[in-house]
Amino acid sequence: MSWSSFYHTASRVFHEYPSWSKSVVVCTIISGGGLAAYSDTRSAYSDNGDQFPKKKVVVLGTGWAGTSFVKSMKNSSYDIHVVSPRNYFAFTPLLPSVTCGTVEARSIVEPIRNISRKSGLDVQFSEAECYKIDPKNNKVYCRASHDKKLGGTEEFSLDYDYLVIAMGARSNTFNTPGVEEHAYFLKEVEDAQRIRHKVINLFERASLPCVPVEEKKRLLSFVIVGGGPTGVEFAAELYDFVHEDLSKLYPSLKDHVKITLLEAGYHILNMFDKRITEFAEEKFKRDGIDVKLGSMVVKVGEKEISSKERGSGEVATLPHGMVVWSTGIGARPEVVDFMKQLGQINRRALVTDEWLRVEGCDNIYALGDCATINQRKVMEDIAVIFSKADKENTGMLDLKEFQNVVGDIIERYPQVDIYLKSQMKDMASLLSKSQESPTTVVDIEYFKQALSKVDSQMKNLPATAQVAAQQGTYLADCFNRMELCERYPEGPLRFRGTGRHRFRAFRYKHFGQFAPLGGEQTAAQLPGDWVSIGHSSQWLWYSVYASKQVSWRTKALVIADWGRRFLFGRDSSQI
Amino acid sequence: MSWSSFYHTASRVFHEYPSWSKSVVVCTIISGGGLAAYSDTRSAYSDNGDQFPKKKVVVLGTGWAGTSFVKSMKNSSYDIHVVSPRNYFAFTPLLPSVTCGTVEARSIVEPIRNISRKSGLDVQFSEAECYKIDPKNNKVYCRASHDKKLGGTEEFSLDYDYLVIAMGARSNTFNTPGVEEHAYFLKEVEDAQRIRHKVINLFERASLPCVPVEEKKRLLSFVIVGGGPTGVEFAAELYDFVHEDLSKLYPSLKDHVKITLLEAGYHILNMFDKRITEFAEEKFKRDGIDVKLGSMVVKVGEKEISSKERGSGEVATLPHGMVVWSTGIGARPEVVDFMKQLGQINRRALVTDEWLRVEGCDNIYALGDCATINQRKVMEDIAVIFSKADKENTGMLDLKEFQNVVGDIIERYPQVDIYLKSQMKDMASLLSKSQESPTTVVDIEYFKQALSKVDSQMKNLPATAQVAAQQGTYLADCFNRMELCERYPEGPLRFRGTGRHRFRAFRYKHFGQFAPLGGEQTAAQLPGDWVSIGHSSQWLWYSVYASKQVSWRTKALVIADWGRRFLFGRDSSQI
Repeated sequence: MSWSSFYHTASRVFHEYPSWSKSVVVCTIISGGGLAAYSDTRSAYSDNGDQFPKKKVVVLGTGWAGTSFVKSMKNSSYDIHVVSPRNYFAFTPLLPSVTCGTVEARSIVEPIRNISRKSGLDVQFSEAECYKIDPKNNKVYCRASHDKKLGGTEEFSLDYDYLVIAMGARSNTFNTPGVEEHAYFLKEVEDAQRIRHKVINLFERASLPCVPVEEKKRLLSFVIVGGGPTGVEFAAELYDFVHEDLSKLYPSLKDHVKITLLEAGYHILNMFDKRITEFAEEKFKRDGIDVKLGSMVVKVGEKEISSKERGSGEVATLPHGMVVWSTGIGARPEVVDFMKQLGQINRRALVTDEWLRVEGCDNIYALGDCATINQRKVMEDIAVIFSKADKENTGMLDLKEFQNVVGDIIERYPQVDIYLKSQMKDMASLLSKSQESPTTVVDIEYFKQALSKVDSQMKNLPATAQVAAQQGTYLADCFNRMELCERYPEGPLRFRGTGRHRFRAFRYKHFGQFAPLGGEQTAAQLPGDWVSIGHSSQWLWYSVYASKQVSWRTKALVIADWGRRFLFGRDSSQI
Repeated sequence: MSWSSFYHTASRVFHEYPSWSKSVVVCTIISGGGLAAYSDTRSAYSDNGDQFPKKKVVVLGTGWAGTSFVKSMKNSSYDIHVVSPRNYFAFTPLLPSVTCGTVEARSIVEPIRNISRKSGLDVQFSEAECYKIDPKNNKVYCRASHDKKLGGTEEFSLDYDYLVIAMGARSNTFNTPGVEEHAYFLKEVEDAQRIRHKVINLFERASLPCVPVEEKKRLLSFVIVGGGPTGVEFAAELYDFVHEDLSKLYPSLKDHVKITLLEAGYHILNMFDKRITEFAEEKFKRDGIDVKLGSMVVKVGEKEISSKERGSGEVATLPHGMVVWSTGIGARPEVVDFMKQLGQINRRALVTDEWLRVEGCDNIYALGDCATINQRKVMEDIAVIFSKADKENTGMLDLKEFQNVVGDIIERYPQVDIYLKSQMKDMASLLSKSQESPTTVVDIEYFKQALSKVDSQMKNLPATAQVAAQQGTYLADCFNRMELCERYPEGPLRFRGTGRHRFRAFRYKHFGQFAPLGGEQTAAQLPGDWVSIGHSSQWLWYSVYASKQVSWRTKALVIADWGRRFLFGRDSSQI
């Protein structure tokens, strides 16, 4: 009976996904904790019809990078296994809205199984944490930490042909004492829910008959550390929540509320245009949000937080009911461990080449917040570039020879392009010794000198959802066209080798950035440093964020939540 | 600055609520845990304009009874203070829908502050648990158990003139070993959320590569204990969740799922009409939900549950991934403690008279699941009834004398009415010795005998939301018209005293009951034993439950949730 029904399911699944072929799961359990070695041999068919085993791709993480990778995979000749402690993708830019119930947590999450199911590919998912990567044996070791009641944690390992690391990062405490114990972070959905619960909790506590005024003031003093987009947006959301909703339900407490924003730098939102920074600082001042610039937190206590003035070095102590910490990110312990294995010491994240491949590994890729691209320097390769260009090996380079490789140089070293644009020059004028003699011949020394300043143009990509998503799509595209590009490489010339690279290198396209400031006002900085502030950009924000939702369900829910907030305000039930 | 702004708020509040008068809060803290005695003296104006202190009404609980009491209070001469560990009211009949995400938790809750604000009265709320009632000194002792980080729990006490106990009940484990540790209850919103989280958790765990088939089967075997409306509805919801949503995302696990319903009685839904019970049992059979009747759970273990067959006495053991326990309710410890003080031993709940006043207390009322009405027996008062009726003290009662008090008897002792209806008799025929001689004279002995069977008609009210809500409205109405009714009593004749009772006694009106059975089918039992089963009553269910929501917000959200479920299914993200 159960067998026949199993057969029915199996056959149905098989028909739904013709690409699936029979799979044999060899699965052994080692007693006690139970480390199981898992190997799944599926197979696909090549163009000429003969069968070959499917390549196993293991993806670590279901954040922006991992999810956009899975979503963009089209090629059924891979057998994809996603491992993540979260069985859903979360639209993190809306997390600050979740902290105050402007948007519900469920409206910004989508089960990864739903997402992968739509791709129509053979994607497996395991809700587990990868705690060790073994590049020598092409294995990852995972631990499923489900609730203890169920009988502790299981461990298992997965083999891979390709590994995609998209584990993201953790909040960085800079080893400030007391942060781990007493501060709230804002990185995961659970963090946002915890903050929401806590805010209501503080208001309820402050309104108890037995609590003296001084204590009420302490309980309702909210301190936000870090003037980046997250910190600023949370401060704005909290202000709106208090003044639009809570003040009606807790009228007597309204005037005890104090919101303080501590920023170590000299300005908040310092990655934005100066106009936006100024506007934000002024708006917060008007709202009575106390922005303390140049103050570095030195200690977070249970009931007070101490910060040091940059200039004077004075240490000021502030009572608090709640501290929210969003000062930037650091590498996760598992990633640090892997970096050690690779000898990547003192780097803030996993170093990859321009094709997102981890340096020193052939089949391991890293994207998103856990990775950083090491853009190759021109000066490192100047000799090989010169000799490649100098076809006749004359030891001298004339403009014609040079112009043949210009395209490849620019593609391989984008900083050259940026430099030329910034200098309003073209390649020719870079080489020509003087305006009079445009055509010219140069030796390597001159060549070096001409390009000496180019590398100064390189900068790291920001750790944003936008970058991670583009990297995921880029890498999936590479995987989808792997065979093709191996036959017909489309990348730039190999200066240090022969032939061309298989793929074009990853290039980030910046589509601008938003900073919601509360009160239906948002600052937007769009490409070409086009800046817009106020209600208009709030509506731009609404439309962009709604359209970027991962599924129709979340689109509908997020819009419904915004409508609900307009009609009924935010809910303050403590659940 | 803060003072002036405080003044502004205060005056605004004062203008918004003219009924408010100045309030002095005397608040002292005793160190260590901090027990604070809190006394708040407000005052109101009588008809002839002279001021008198407002009566303090303390309400314990924000469930159906407490909330409907607060909602229905209109009289501004009370100073109401609500104390509850939950700062919201929850529409509990939809809890089973929350366990599977058919409806979101936030859609069925409304902050009590919102509800009381609408009444326009002077209502305070404290999020705390009452742990002791002191009827001698008219005091309740409360404890606010907020998160430990904030510095432990505070304690305070409140004085009252009237106390309304509406603390509800707790799930009854009947001291079955292992229930507290291993089973899930379904009484609070948090319970529903915990269950939802757990269900997904089990599916994720069962789909790990290292879990053998036997363990998958155990993890996905759900056991529900108790065939009452809650248990049955949860089983139905779970079945729908698995077969409509999870089976798509976890196709390989679909056939490992097993839902078992254990009922100690001989039928599920035994408070319903036989037709409904049969229909439900058949539907569950068709669905493959294993309904085990007459099996009493003797032990709940971490991974298995043992139950005893009623007939054979055999003990069967079942592996389980999750046990949901809904076998009825018991008294909360604080209530039991209070009952002990009053000498109410071995009672399942606080005993009140027909006016919901706790027996032995003048100014304490109890409603909802924590209370039970002790309907006065005719036989206890037969002598006084007789003498009241026997105006001339002849020791004999003629029909005329009798008919003068019939109305009062029936109002005071509703069982008389029920008895007569059941016997198709009227009062006269009850007394007349034979059909031939309708008018007659009886002595007390005969009178006793005639009414001897009457008390057998008494039965306790069910512990339902409907009863609790009606009791709350009834009591509020009494409070609203207290002065008036003291002057012009409207209640029945006092047989054991002189004059009349101030108020009519509480009478419960039954509007019928629903039992959703899943698959868009609901059983409805309406007054007059009118039974309807199927899709039609499902729509009746939708409309009734939507209309009964406490606020427009929750109305809108619940309907939106139903729509969302139709369009996109239920979400299975593990948050």
